[in-house]
Amino acid sequence: MPSMKPAKVGLRTRLFQLIFESDTPAAKAFDVVLVILIFLSVGIVMLNSIAEYHQQYGNYFFYIEWFITVIFTVELALRIYCLDKPLLYLKSFYGVIDVLSVLPTWLVLLFPGAHTLIVVRLLRALRLFRVLDMMTIEGEKRLLLDALLRSRHQIMLFLFTVLMLVTIFSSILYLIEPAEAGFSSIPTAIYWGIVTLTTVGYGDITPITPLGQFISVAIMLTGYSIIALPVGVFSAEVIRALRAERYSDEACPGCGRHHHERDARYCKFCGTWLDEETADPRARE
Amino acid sequence: MPSMKPAKVGLRTRLFQLIFESDTPAAKAFDVVLVILIFLSVGIVMLNSIAEYHQQYGNYFFYIEWFITVIFTVELALRIYCLDKPLLYLKSFYGVIDVLSVLPTWLVLLFPGAHTLIVVRLLRALRLFRVLDMMTIEGEKRLLLDALLRSRHQIMLFLFTVLMLVTIFSSILYLIEPAEAGFSSIPTAIYWGIVTLTTVGYGDITPITPLGQFISVAIMLTGYSIIALPVGVFSAEVIRALRAERYSDEACPGCGRHHHERDARYCKFCGTWLDEETADPRARE
Amino acid sequence: MPSMKPAKVGLRTRLFQLIFESDTPAAKAFDVVLVILIFLSVGIVMLNSIAEYHQQYGNYFFYIEWFITVIFTVELALRIYCLDKPLLYLKSFYGVIDVLSVLPTWLVLLFPGAHTLIVVRLLRALRLFRVLDMMTIEGEKRLLLDALLRSRHQIMLFLFTVLMLVTIFSSILYLIEPAEAGFSSIPTAIYWGIVTLTTVGYGDITPITPLGQFISVAIMLTGYSIIALPVGVFSAEVIRALRAERYSDEACPGCGRHHHERDARYCKFCGTWLDEETADPRARE
Amino acid sequence: MPSMKPAKVGLRTRLFQLIFESDTPAAKAFDVVLVILIFLSVGIVMLNSIAEYHQQYGNYFFYIEWFITVIFTVELALRIYCLDKPLLYLKSFYGVIDVLSVLPTWLVLLFPGAHTLIVVRLLRALRLFRVLDMMTIEGEKRLLLDALLRSRHQIMLFLFTVLMLVTIFSSILYLIEPAEAGFSSIPTAIYWGIVTLTTVGYGDITPITPLGQFISVAIMLTGYSIIALPVGVFSAEVIRALRAERYSDEACPGCGRHHHERDARYCKFCGTWLDEETADPRARE
Repeated sequence: MPSMKPAKVGLRTRLFQLIFESDTPAAKAFDVVLVILIFLSVGIVMLNSIAEYHQQYGNYFFYIEWFITVIFTVELALRIYCLDKPLLYLKSFYGVIDVLSVLPTWLVLLFPGAHTLIVVRLLRALRLFRVLDMMTIEGEKRLLLDALLRSRHQIMLFLFTVLMLVTIFSSILYLIEPAEAGFSSIPTAIYWGIVTLTTVGYGDITPITPLGQFISVAIMLTGYSIIALPVGVFSAEVIRALRAERYSDEACPGCGRHHHERDARYCKFCGTWLDEETADPRARE
Repeated sequence: MPSMKPAKVGLRTRLFQLIFESDTPAAKAFDVVLVILIFLSVGIVMLNSIAEYHQQYGNYFFYIEWFITVIFTVELALRIYCLDKPLLYLKSFYGVIDVLSVLPTWLVLLFPGAHTLIVVRLLRALRLFRVLDMMTIEGEKRLLLDALLRSRHQIMLFLFTVLMLVTIFSSILYLIEPAEAGFSSIPTAIYWGIVTLTTVGYGDITPITPLGQFISVAIMLTGYSIIALPVGVFSAEVIRALRAERYSDEACPGCGRHHHERDARYCKFCGTWLDEETADPRARE
Repeated sequence: MPSMKPAKVGLRTRLFQLIFESDTPAAKAFDVVLVILIFLSVGIVMLNSIAEYHQQYGNYFFYIEWFITVIFTVELALRIYCLDKPLLYLKSFYGVIDVLSVLPTWLVLLFPGAHTLIVVRLLRALRLFRVLDMMTIEGEKRLLLDALLRSRHQIMLFLFTVLMLVTIFSSILYLIEPAEAGFSSIPTAIYWGIVTLTTVGYGDITPITPLGQFISVAIMLTGYSIIALPVGVFSAEVIRALRAERYSDEACPGCGRHHHERDARYCKFCGTWLDEETADPRARE
Repeated sequence: MPSMKPAKVGLRTRLFQLIFESDTPAAKAFDVVLVILIFLSVGIVMLNSIAEYHQQYGNYFFYIEWFITVIFTVELALRIYCLDKPLLYLKSFYGVIDVLSVLPTWLVLLFPGAHTLIVVRLLRALRLFRVLDMMTIEGEKRLLLDALLRSRHQIMLFLFTVLMLVTIFSSILYLIEPAEAGFSSIPTAIYWGIVTLTTVGYGDITPITPLGQFISVAIMLTGYSIIALPVGVFSAEVIRALRAERYSDEACPGCGRHHHERDARYCKFCGTWLDEETADPRARE
């Protein structure tokens, strides 16, 4: 019956606005509930990992977990229901997250051994990004990502060089340090080298020979001052990104090209007068 | 008698100038005494926390503490007395600090058990900010706060993403590391993860499995290079703030060009008089 | 026979293109194989340093190592063969690396004692830089190196001053700290000082006297905030480099204004044709 | 005899050039010898602090030490001799260093107990700065110092706020952590707090209660991201200092004021045409 279709569409549309958008009060409330449930479920996974809490409140956690999982599953079903191309959604980043955030609990039902899967639930936290996306951080995120993309070559080159140096220096310590120092193999030495270069410095492995300590000092000073490279490059990129504002998005009336600086009066490509309100001073001549 | 009232007002005004302002020599002396007393009382709380000092000089500390508390109480009373709207002051940041800096000592008198309150006295240190505020740091503070406010979104987004990554990676280590490694629960693992990502690296918990060490290395390198993000964003904001402080955003009425320094009176490009309110002195010639 | 010479030349030319260039499919494949072999041989040196792996798969590693060494030796021979000035190549950075990456294995054949030389093989990793050089990182590398060169004086001065401070403060701790603290000699104290200043903080040596802890705190705060110097200088240099890359330093022949973007053909202020070599297309009209 | 006086003056002048300047080959050689002696004596103080070296080569060190001290004393005498105002020199930074670098050794002769004074010899290292000063680092040093001076207010405010936060948070840990955690007193807790905030993280004191670990995490994240403040401020100042180049040091022909930007064509103070070679376009009108 045609009378039903619009109704059905209406329902799907309303569901879509409720779940996927956040401009109506109902949708806002929906987001808030979602965020609370996400934090709740993540908190439970964490508390449940603490031995005594697990013993005392284990089954409460169990029930709450199932309660949340059912809600999330229904929500997932509704998302799929009110979309015209559910597959596209399921293949998207958030689609995968949504599936991953309910799957483990159901799987444990089938395979009791799949206990480690429980941790996968923590991926639910990633759902918070969707709510963030709906808020006004779009600009910030783009700025950061843009600057990251622009500086990725320098930063990768930087990391690669750093790893080279660490590999070579660490192997030297593997050779010169006695067994009790803990440099048991080259991979372990490299682990130590990165612990040192990044200035983490656990202290689980430390050089004891004077030469070893001297080389460590070299690695530390390198790691301490070489951080200037990514920071400098990234700062420069952020500044450039912030300055992008100084380009007007007006096109040149002469050649139609964009990317003119705000203080430009003539098109830098074809020399046309850019300010259409006033007359070109050269016209007088 | 009306003759008293002005006197009384005069007293309150003089007290106000003495306590709340710092442009008269007396007020300056008052501030100096205040700073000394603050440092003295904070120092005493600290020394008193050292066992042997407490035993030896405990009662000296006790007397000095009471001496300072009485002075601060009198000062607080005077502040309230010489203000027309004392409640507004008591609700303000500094009002709360002032009350908190005398209350604990009196409370201990009533409830001898309230020993932990003693530490609240350390909040007295916050009173130093008031003296700082009277000094010339206003500009610096505004610059820093302004840049912080402008970059808070990026930095919060940065912290949020970092916490996500740490949560997920740490839980993996909680799963793969054996009991003796110390990853006893997910919260503990996250504590370790932040200790590692921030390059603090206590070493109280360290991975011992090769895979665990490999993931730690990933966290370290992330934490080591990701610091570039807040630093870059903040640098950019400070640079923008410093520049904004130097250039006016007014356009030249003659050539419409921007980017004039605040102290500019004539356009540096076309020589036009910039201040449209007044007349160009050259016109007179 | 003259007929052979061109053929020979042709062979050398083709070899040259295959080995030293990377624009033909064959050359690209050659690079890929090279990269794989480098990673393989580096990985083997690492795995071989792990005791149990060495026992189980020691001889496999041995054979693979010889296989790779032979290939690299042949490659080196071909490189020398197809160059007109092989000596220049052998004296170059990559030439030395290429020799160092095959020599150790052969030397172990002659002197079985030269086991430590094995680690020299890790220098093979440096060969990866050659492949990187052929890729599009040239610009990034130049940018970083340029900024590093421009800021090297400041950074050296910075490191020198830092080392001074560390030397002096560390010696004080060597004097005041008791034996059990671990400050056994001034060099050791300096090692500790740099571990502290660079915020590595192993914790293998820590001050235990209050005065010692106070001085350490001074060193930490210095190291924590002084990092701003190299970072600030380097950021400034990168920003300058990025800007220089974007703006030409030519002045406009019409209005003498600077700060034109490199792709500008007309002055954005007065619309004058910037390229003085050629004629303004508009003149024709 | 008057004939001697010029000779004497000549000698003093020559000595002055030799010791205080570095433009003649002799003076350069003098500096080189000085640098070598400084490094030698500093090296000896260090080696002598290592127990076994002290036992084996103790008296060699003793003789070399005396040899260097005598040379430095003679040099000091000559410096005083060839100066017209020796007192001014002795009161200057380098004068004090010069005296301190010979005094301890002589004092030990008088008071054998003054062993700790030996370490004062390390201050000799500071003499290297004089040689550095004669080299071309003047510019770099000025740039760094200038930027440091300009940003000192922000950085002091930053350090002050940081110390506040650390004091308050650390005292909380002093209250909540059990004795075995090592927070034995508030000063110790503050020591731990700065070890944590500066991301040094020795691990000699670590929180063990969940709440304590939570607060530590807050301190770590603060210390990890707050470093952006001094770095950002300092970067901005360095960039401003580097940009100072963009101001021409030409004075305005009209009002004689300086500080015009390089791209300025008219004085921003009096509107006079700055470029004296060409004519003011406005003259035509």
